[in-house]
Amino acid sequence: MVALGGNAILKAGQRGEFELQIENTREAAKIIANLVEKGYHLVVTHGNGPQVGDILLQNETAVKAVPPSPLDACVAESQGLIGYMLIQSMDNEFRKRNIGMQALCVLTRTIVSADDPAFENPSKPVGGYYSGEESRKLKKEKKWKMVQDSARGGYRRVVPSPVPVAIAEGELLKTFFHSSENRREILIVSGGGGIPVIRKGKGYRGVEAVIDKDLAAQVVATSLGVDELFILTDVDSVFLDFGTEKQHPLRSATVDEMKRHISEGQFGRGSMLPKAEAAVKFVQMGGKRAVITSQEKMFDALDGKDGTTIFEND
Amino acid sequence: MVALGGNAILKAGQRGEFELQIENTREAAKIIANLVEKGYHLVVTHGNGPQVGDILLQNETAVKAVPPSPLDACVAESQGLIGYMLIQSMDNEFRKRNIGMQALCVLTRTIVSADDPAFENPSKPVGGYYSGEESRKLKKEKKWKMVQDSARGGYRRVVPSPVPVAIAEGELLKTFFHSSENRREILIVSGGGGIPVIRKGKGYRGVEAVIDKDLAAQVVATSLGVDELFILTDVDSVFLDFGTEKQHPLRSATVDEMKRHISEGQFGRGSMLPKAEAAVKFVQMGGKRAVITSQEKMFDALDGKDGTTIFEND
Repeated sequence: MVALGGNAILKAGQRGEFELQIENTREAAKIIANLVEKGYHLVVTHGNGPQVGDILLQNETAVKAVPPSPLDACVAESQGLIGYMLIQSMDNEFRKRNIGMQALCVLTRTIVSADDPAFENPSKPVGGYYSGEESRKLKKEKKWKMVQDSARGGYRRVVPSPVPVAIAEGELLKTFFHSSENRREILIVSGGGGIPVIRKGKGYRGVEAVIDKDLAAQVVATSLGVDELFILTDVDSVFLDFGTEKQHPLRSATVDEMKRHISEGQFGRGSMLPKAEAAVKFVQMGGKRAVITSQEKMFDALDGKDGTTIFEND
Repeated sequence: MVALGGNAILKAGQRGEFELQIENTREAAKIIANLVEKGYHLVVTHGNGPQVGDILLQNETAVKAVPPSPLDACVAESQGLIGYMLIQSMDNEFRKRNIGMQALCVLTRTIVSADDPAFENPSKPVGGYYSGEESRKLKKEKKWKMVQDSARGGYRRVVPSPVPVAIAEGELLKTFFHSSENRREILIVSGGGGIPVIRKGKGYRGVEAVIDKDLAAQVVATSLGVDELFILTDVDSVFLDFGTEKQHPLRSATVDEMKRHISEGQFGRGSMLPKAEAAVKFVQMGGKRAVITSQEKMFDALDGKDGTTIFEND
């Protein structure tokens, strides 16, 4: 399973022009095609931060013309948007190389617990920037939780980021993935961490939240029973003592070693920490190895020459 | 295969509030569950007119804050949005009734011909209303074709509505649909007529167009080799001499009879005509029967007591 980094769709500093994003997904599609040519049977997931942010901003800006959609529906829209860019780019690359595979994007919901403490403590800023007055109005009318953004000024909505528990489509996708007849497809699933839902009665109900895409990737990877999880990001490997004089790359670690690094606070909360946690949990739950690296260094990382590989304990 | 009518998601006169749409999809889910309990192995498709219209309007309204997406990408977003409402509503209904099935929504692209005459003659109005001055600017800057809307005043963009030729994901979906292991899923595909693409080199390229959902439903139904196509709409059956004193429902017709009604101009271009054409083509291409009816009269129609059934020639 490959969890594409945010820069597979939009690189730092770029705005969300569709043509630009498609150029980036074309690059990502080449990496995927290389893996397929190496014999990997892949499942792909991806983030949606800038895209769902843009969709929210469009909803908020056009609020007088169009009733805005809740956040879970915006995540669903972003799965449609990004899924389309990825299937088109991947298929075109496969067809160019005469690889008899095709990308298939399945909408995916991620189940979270209604009791997750994140619902009491929303922390993830999303959507546009508002003045103090607008912020007070939104708090009152929409019951949004707002925080002041000290860097850019103004107020932003914050939403919960609960821990993924399971994938609503997990069983079906597992059957599909392992059925030998379907070896011609590359599944794209759980985009943006999945559409967040909680259990309600016998069924599900959407919730306004965002789910970390790497933590969700682990849940998908474990549910489908894949052997390896590749988490791609914008750095070539995990670093220890990051940002200090002692900074150095971590080439490999066992689950226990990685857990120690996590408990020592080696990794940034919004950046490397969820990737490290996802990697550890994937291997703990039976995965053979997890690799954290960049799109560029992926192949060196698979040979252990770059990136960070997390193995089970000896 | 069931092609849901627009009123399965948004009824006439309603605006696009998410909660309202979910209420409608819950009703549609009951019909689907009834069919499943009758033993049907279903594929479901749906329209996206009001939803893609809202997404376009959001894109146009927020143009200064967010680079707007092309129409094909907006269709992809609408497949995400509507697909989410349908899988959630259908799953909840299945789980309530202890039906061991699950809905799965797959993003689907519809291939059209780059030579389709519709590209020379865009006719389908989409998005917001503009003043004469704005309209001239959009024509110049974006090369949009604009038409004056005499009823509401103002100018609107018109886009091509080419004929669907094939489904890019057709082969994979056919394998999936017929694989006995996967009898637990109800596929939702080709929403809004599918994301419009043309062939380019060995691959595909998105085009700014909209595809009739009923014509696309026929292409999907024929590609998957399903037996029956149910086209749901807001009238209980096809009428002959519609709007005249002689108006009467058509209970059944052979392909040749239906073709004669079509050539006599019995059916409205933007409404019943594509449904009649889709029904005829489906049966001509090997389908057992096509039924055009309303959600409410569906079960009577299956027994021949209501609706309009199109059979092959004797």
